[in-house]
Amino acid sequence: MGQFTKHVFVCTTGGTCPTQGDTEGYVKAMRAALGKAGLHTEIRVNKSGCFSQCGNGPMVVVYPEDVWYAGVKAEDLDEIVQSHLVGGKPVGRLLYQPGKPGPNVIVQKDKH
Amino acid sequence: MGQFTKHVFVCTTGGTCPTQGDTEGYVKAMRAALGKAGLHTEIRVNKSGCFSQCGNGPMVVVYPEDVWYAGVKAEDLDEIVQSHLVGGKPVGRLLYQPGKPGPNVIVQKDKH
Repeated sequence: MGQFTKHVFVCTTGGTCPTQGDTEGYVKAMRAALGKAGLHTEIRVNKSGCFSQCGNGPMVVVYPEDVWYAGVKAEDLDEIVQSHLVGGKPVGRLLYQPGKPGPNVIVQKDKH
Repeated sequence: MGQFTKHVFVCTTGGTCPTQGDTEGYVKAMRAALGKAGLHTEIRVNKSGCFSQCGNGPMVVVYPEDVWYAGVKAEDLDEIVQSHLVGGKPVGRLLYQPGKPGPNVIVQKDKH
């Protein structure tokens, strides 16, 4: 019944994700990469509102698989596209672990 | 791995959906109804960019089930919430049939 084999949503308008990365740019970059791979009609990337996981971003979710990524950096996008979206293998190191900051978020440790 | 039992996306920024209904209002209405049902933490409703199904809107998609609705009117929202999101039974009459205009779209027939 679905229109896409994978439908990717990037939080671009939440309170924190867009401050943690150029999330609108993430959408453009993934679309461009999927276009090069000839998959732009079967895999859709969309901007989305807030996923209510604030502080763990930038957040990216892939449906219908229900795979969630946290702390996604711009330099991670190619791996997400090539390994997961094209190759079908999710990027384990970036998977969201609720309640923990994203894998790539630098946690400021208390100096004292 | 997912954060929500159902994750609903409403096209609010595509070229046609927002002209076919108050789609931002759809998001607010569904969130309010889910809040009343006590399901606002397990079912998320988000605004989304264009699903590339222009002219068949307003479009609403429910993941991870991958259920697509077309031609959704404001007066259909309560049925979608109560039957599908709360009750688990998708609303058959509103399901998207690709290539056909939404169930509620009035098709202008050629008079000649």
